[in-house]
Amino acid sequence: MFVLVNLKTYPCDAVSVAQAAADVAADTDARIAVAPQAADLRPVAETGVETWAQHVSPHDHGSHTGSTLAATVADAGATGTLLNHSEHRLKLADVDGGLRAAEDTGLETIVCANNPRQIAAAATLGPDMVAVEPPELIGSGTPVSRADPDIVREAVAAADEVNPPVPVLCGAGISTGDDVEAAADLGAEGVLLASGVAKADDPESVLRDLVSSV
Amino acid sequence: MFVLVNLKTYPCDAVSVAQAAADVAADTDARIAVAPQAADLRPVAETGVETWAQHVSPHDHGSHTGSTLAATVADAGATGTLLNHSEHRLKLADVDGGLRAAEDTGLETIVCANNPRQIAAAATLGPDMVAVEPPELIGSGTPVSRADPDIVREAVAAADEVNPPVPVLCGAGISTGDDVEAAADLGAEGVLLASGVAKADDPESVLRDLVSSV
Amino acid sequence: MFVLVNLKTYPCDAVSVAQAAADVAADTDARIAVAPQAADLRPVAETGVETWAQHVSPHDHGSHTGSTLAATVADAGATGTLLNHSEHRLKLADVDGGLRAAEDTGLETIVCANNPRQIAAAATLGPDMVAVEPPELIGSGTPVSRADPDIVREAVAAADEVNPPVPVLCGAGISTGDDVEAAADLGAEGVLLASGVAKADDPESVLRDLVSSV
Amino acid sequence: MFVLVNLKTYPCDAVSVAQAAADVAADTDARIAVAPQAADLRPVAETGVETWAQHVSPHDHGSHTGSTLAATVADAGATGTLLNHSEHRLKLADVDGGLRAAEDTGLETIVCANNPRQIAAAATLGPDMVAVEPPELIGSGTPVSRADPDIVREAVAAADEVNPPVPVLCGAGISTGDDVEAAADLGAEGVLLASGVAKADDPESVLRDLVSSV
Repeated sequence: MFVLVNLKTYPCDAVSVAQAAADVAADTDARIAVAPQAADLRPVAETGVETWAQHVSPHDHGSHTGSTLAATVADAGATGTLLNHSEHRLKLADVDGGLRAAEDTGLETIVCANNPRQIAAAATLGPDMVAVEPPELIGSGTPVSRADPDIVREAVAAADEVNPPVPVLCGAGISTGDDVEAAADLGAEGVLLASGVAKADDPESVLRDLVSSV
Repeated sequence: MFVLVNLKTYPCDAVSVAQAAADVAADTDARIAVAPQAADLRPVAETGVETWAQHVSPHDHGSHTGSTLAATVADAGATGTLLNHSEHRLKLADVDGGLRAAEDTGLETIVCANNPRQIAAAATLGPDMVAVEPPELIGSGTPVSRADPDIVREAVAAADEVNPPVPVLCGAGISTGDDVEAAADLGAEGVLLASGVAKADDPESVLRDLVSSV
Repeated sequence: MFVLVNLKTYPCDAVSVAQAAADVAADTDARIAVAPQAADLRPVAETGVETWAQHVSPHDHGSHTGSTLAATVADAGATGTLLNHSEHRLKLADVDGGLRAAEDTGLETIVCANNPRQIAAAATLGPDMVAVEPPELIGSGTPVSRADPDIVREAVAAADEVNPPVPVLCGAGISTGDDVEAAADLGAEGVLLASGVAKADDPESVLRDLVSSV
Repeated sequence: MFVLVNLKTYPCDAVSVAQAAADVAADTDARIAVAPQAADLRPVAETGVETWAQHVSPHDHGSHTGSTLAATVADAGATGTLLNHSEHRLKLADVDGGLRAAEDTGLETIVCANNPRQIAAAATLGPDMVAVEPPELIGSGTPVSRADPDIVREAVAAADEVNPPVPVLCGAGISTGDDVEAAADLGAEGVLLASGVAKADDPESVLRDLVSSV
């Protein structure tokens, strides 16, 4: 199971969450990554944790003031990027463009989507993984694996039909090891988390619980 | 072959192009549709021509000032709608939402996309048809069927892999019956046109030539 | 006082609301306008009521699939247009562009904004009117004139500093003649309404009450 | 005169341009700042050069995946931010929101706009400075001060009418000390540059020439 901690724009200390994640990953052989804001990629990567960007632009070098290029986040230490998170939905053409830009710089990619049909569409574009996160469950505290297990099963089935099959992560409301185990039972190969870790008093113990069943 | 004339926001007389299209369709049994701006749907539909919207919102009834609903264009006489034209690209989630809204009101749908990979993604979302239009050829006067035949072949192959297969239209630079024939030879089941008809001195004779080989 | 009824994308019968508005306007000399979806502009205008668009594109004629031009809504019978409604917020450059497009075709304009500072910015761009609608009060049933009278006073003060001064409308939660009177007392020269009329069982009697104090 | 070097998403070495700018600023007492991509803010700020962000989100802390907060760029060492660059145009409400977010974290602000009317609107929102950059001259090699001196004069006049007056920078095509002097003669209090420095073989000598007349 791959555990990706999305720090969004929470008021957490990105480096200390990253350090906690690096420590737990080292102790447990679990795969844990942290996705901070672009301006925090360097100090997060310096902790040694697997570091992901929250978004990259479909653009290549050029006149694109205010964009964050795949090449630049890679240079800052990121080894992967989310695309099309439900808080940063992209045009279909820009999901494709962002994937090509990430691919050209060797970044791994996860495309997020809201439902199994969009998961199928995202998977055909060739990302390394896809993630299904029903928007109404994000931040709800109710894990998608319990609130809507069928959406995870159907997303896995949809991504399996693409050739080659694309691994599915699930997100929204995940906060415990039991939630991770339930996600795995539904066929997910990883989970996206955010507030459950980023807003925790003790992110390290939450992470240890999360990966305890892996 | 399905010939869809997109009037964009050209300064043409929408009703007279529509009347020409209705006349040619009646004489030839060719399937010809006209897609005017939303405010012109009613008078275009009143000519009896098959009428399409250029876009519909993913929204249902509610508080969405400035949006054009699928139900409203259907009520105005449209029987189909384009989605995700390269001049009006949509978020992946809104292509999906627009398709569901169109489906709910019985509108036929064509999702446009730039390349075979995006065509595959669009096709998995379940439109009635897809259309490949390389943006760099739109309005170029060079038909896609000659400038880049492989993109049409690959788009047809991509849409064929979806189950059930989705018919492919091609657009960009089409203006003659020979272009339509070349498109058909590449596997396209229709063409999108715009300036070639909308800006013609005599739209009716252009349309007659276009469908002459069908 | 100018009463503008925004039909948004409500499931109401646009023509029957328009007919009611036309009847009340004729009986009372109140200025009442109705803003339907683009596809409904023609039948609404045919009732004789003053007809407004909910939005127009900043573009001129050209290759802009899915846009609604100022010239096209004018041709369909609109004599004015909203711009930058909080449900259809525009880029600063497109507020400016939309105003220029509307001006070129003789449409009257109202630019909406959320707060007095944005009202000042909007007013400097030269619209015929501005409208302040705090987004949190839209559809709340609590009139802005009671919930937040200062925002109306400050918007009027902000628009008065521009040379020449720009009349201010207020919206959000307006549904009775008392609300209209309260808005006038705060310096507003008109009101924007939506659900209060569009969702009423008897739009005509709501409109008669609304203009009773004018 | 304030010289702001916008590195956009050019393939330059941000740190070496920043070092050159820091050196020239130290030698000459000219005010020179560098605006890199978000992921490069930290190493740029570590050179000691005045560091600006190219954009900040209107959001506060919360669930906004993929956004770059004002507080985060300030923490990374930025002391100012551009907003509404013509390559990253913002909704009117988001220019306002971005300004408030920047203000709350003590960042200086420059709002870009295309023409004097939009400059007036931008200035009423209360930025520290505004910048007029006709989009058609960006990257043209022809300085706005020569190609269209009236637009600079009119922008200065527009910003002067706001109370208190807002200093105007100009951009587009600036690359020499003569261009800077011409901009100053037209009333500009600074210049925005990009490719002229970022793509130069020797950015330091370009910068020395740029500030030679200041």
